[in-house]
Amino acid sequence: MKEFFKVVHLNDLLSLRTEFDPLGTEIVPVEESLERILAQEIMSDVDIPGFTRSTMDGYAVTAASTFGASESSPAFLNIVGAITMGDEPQFSIALGQAAKIATGGMLPKGADSVVMVEHTDAVTDTAIEVFKSVAPGQNIIEKGEDIKKKTSVLTLGRKIRPQELGLLAATGQEEVKVFKKPIVGIISTGDEVVSIDQTPAVGRIRDINTYSLLGLVRQAGGIPKLFGIVKDSTADLKERCTLALATSDMVLVSGGSSVGVRDLSIDVIEALPESRVLVHGISISPGKPTILAKSGAKAFWGLPGHAVSAMVVFLVGVRPFLRHLAGLSHGDTFGSYLTARLTRNLASVQGRMDFVRVRLIEKDGRQWAEPILGKSGLICTMVEADGLIFIDLNQEGLEKGDKVCVYPI
Amino acid sequence: MKEFFKVVHLNDLLSLRTEFDPLGTEIVPVEESLERILAQEIMSDVDIPGFTRSTMDGYAVTAASTFGASESSPAFLNIVGAITMGDEPQFSIALGQAAKIATGGMLPKGADSVVMVEHTDAVTDTAIEVFKSVAPGQNIIEKGEDIKKKTSVLTLGRKIRPQELGLLAATGQEEVKVFKKPIVGIISTGDEVVSIDQTPAVGRIRDINTYSLLGLVRQAGGIPKLFGIVKDSTADLKERCTLALATSDMVLVSGGSSVGVRDLSIDVIEALPESRVLVHGISISPGKPTILAKSGAKAFWGLPGHAVSAMVVFLVGVRPFLRHLAGLSHGDTFGSYLTARLTRNLASVQGRMDFVRVRLIEKDGRQWAEPILGKSGLICTMVEADGLIFIDLNQEGLEKGDKVCVYPI
Repeated sequence: MKEFFKVVHLNDLLSLRTEFDPLGTEIVPVEESLERILAQEIMSDVDIPGFTRSTMDGYAVTAASTFGASESSPAFLNIVGAITMGDEPQFSIALGQAAKIATGGMLPKGADSVVMVEHTDAVTDTAIEVFKSVAPGQNIIEKGEDIKKKTSVLTLGRKIRPQELGLLAATGQEEVKVFKKPIVGIISTGDEVVSIDQTPAVGRIRDINTYSLLGLVRQAGGIPKLFGIVKDSTADLKERCTLALATSDMVLVSGGSSVGVRDLSIDVIEALPESRVLVHGISISPGKPTILAKSGAKAFWGLPGHAVSAMVVFLVGVRPFLRHLAGLSHGDTFGSYLTARLTRNLASVQGRMDFVRVRLIEKDGRQWAEPILGKSGLICTMVEADGLIFIDLNQEGLEKGDKVCVYPI
Repeated sequence: MKEFFKVVHLNDLLSLRTEFDPLGTEIVPVEESLERILAQEIMSDVDIPGFTRSTMDGYAVTAASTFGASESSPAFLNIVGAITMGDEPQFSIALGQAAKIATGGMLPKGADSVVMVEHTDAVTDTAIEVFKSVAPGQNIIEKGEDIKKKTSVLTLGRKIRPQELGLLAATGQEEVKVFKKPIVGIISTGDEVVSIDQTPAVGRIRDINTYSLLGLVRQAGGIPKLFGIVKDSTADLKERCTLALATSDMVLVSGGSSVGVRDLSIDVIEALPESRVLVHGISISPGKPTILAKSGAKAFWGLPGHAVSAMVVFLVGVRPFLRHLAGLSHGDTFGSYLTARLTRNLASVQGRMDFVRVRLIEKDGRQWAEPILGKSGLICTMVEADGLIFIDLNQEGLEKGDKVCVYPI
């Protein structure tokens, strides 16, 4: 029998990210940059806004003209002009004067605030009554209040959300430099695995992992590249892995990573040039029989064949590496979480980190996490799940009512 | 002065979703179906797995053969064969017998469990010692345990995540019927708005909303279609809206939705054939001056011009409609949330629902929500934010330490 792998802590696995360099960069049009990772710092070429502007429809005034104004004792102001949208006003405002202005319009010289149209009444075509006083700075955005010229507005490594798109537009970035998306090669192994267009004969099963991994890679910001199913043959697997490594930035092989009659992945890694095994076995459940190797400069993963195990290892192990390659090295390892109370006691074995699928339930105005128990070969348990929780290495278990962090899946 | 709009509660706005019919369906390859919404029920054509299989590398046995086995008193079993992966075993197992099996292998007749290889020792080529007893059903997945043949495995209206992709693969769906993605036309209005390739003259500002809305539409599962910037002219806006309505499933016009000097959207809607205003004004802040109209069978939105207001209205108002069109009618209105404690008191005006941008902070092992105050015209406040919280219509405010639901943005 082969020797058992020496399991490492998940944190030790994750610290190996630095063995791999983030990918290169590319320039994309800003409208294609959503969810990409910035590979440059963004400086603003202008003040935003470039002028003091109104945030309301109303009248630009000197605030002092309205002091003490009320319903019973309105302030009386003379209209000296109207602001044309998009233009610089060619007149100024003095005490006792007002200029008609729309939302977004530029304040004339002398004006320091805007009275909302709702708080005024037109007396004549050239005069208004104001029923409410305004303070200096009220209902306006000052020049540079959103963004100051020549300041850094977005840092390298930042993920572009819709609001960052808006900011990129505001600063005139028609194109942005982002990190390339990692191309992730996906291979399924096993003599019993058949492609999804086949009706499996007795003893065979359709290829699940190629598709769940494809989804996970895409969700994590990678580009999945499918290399199909390889039978249990070292020669065939070596050939396919060589092809995948040559055309991908990272390779995932599911199945054949355990220590047993089909311990193919290790054999293959040892047969590949410039390759060495970094990790064989992680102290997590499910997902213990995981391999991480470095082949040339690329990460090569041997994932467990069980559908749930492969997904869990991807989420807690592979994804942080993929995000690292993609230039996103900061942030939580597993992404954002929400908190909930556990609906039942959960036992755990000390010395391993248990990842448990949970369903989220709203009850009594609270969020509850209900564990979904079931073997790690059952894909339906992932379909029923809303998230994962974990029981740490040195915990014996969790109790009903305990607060847990739920990582959405 | 024009009459003020009659504001409606956000819930009243959302109940108008039923005015619009979900879009038609299309067939896509399963590998392109991630994050699409199923437009069919999925039945399984097979039991999954189709046979009882091992979840471990080891020996298939009759559990009774191992009862009482221990390190000091191992059970002695004769090896009667080895299971070939992917094939149906042509022999059976009796008491006192074992067959070598790998993970995923099919159990032979007579076997009801698998002894892990780690709990055995080879005595000869044809005999093993077993050091630990197994229970019937241990280390196996029974035929149909994951999914039973001819049962419903996924319902119509379900969003396809990576695990659903795996399940679709398991049931042999090479193609799936999904709802079409809504095409959302986006128009910015305003004489002061310039395209992002220009350096804005004094009084002008680059077009932010087109890009933040593009990102939000894409994130919500729609296809953004840009119709550029229209000047403050009813005729021009009518022409562009007519074009957008003809080629989109929903249209968003930002700017010009308030009641004031530039109340263009209402004029345009009234000028379009078969159109009527359903809502003009929602009791939310920011975002009060919002218009929802029905033009033919399509939703037409007038969004506020302020960058933050337009995004908030999209997130809490438009997105639920978009999801409804896309076939996803169930689930939370605003999506999933996480909980945090507020870092400071927040005042609010009664009679309106306040949406407040917050930053998430980890402190003392807890998650805190720190309000980001700032005018609704400042895009940088959205860039700094991790989520939105809301203060309900009848709340006067929230206190420091209060538990709040944070909707990630």
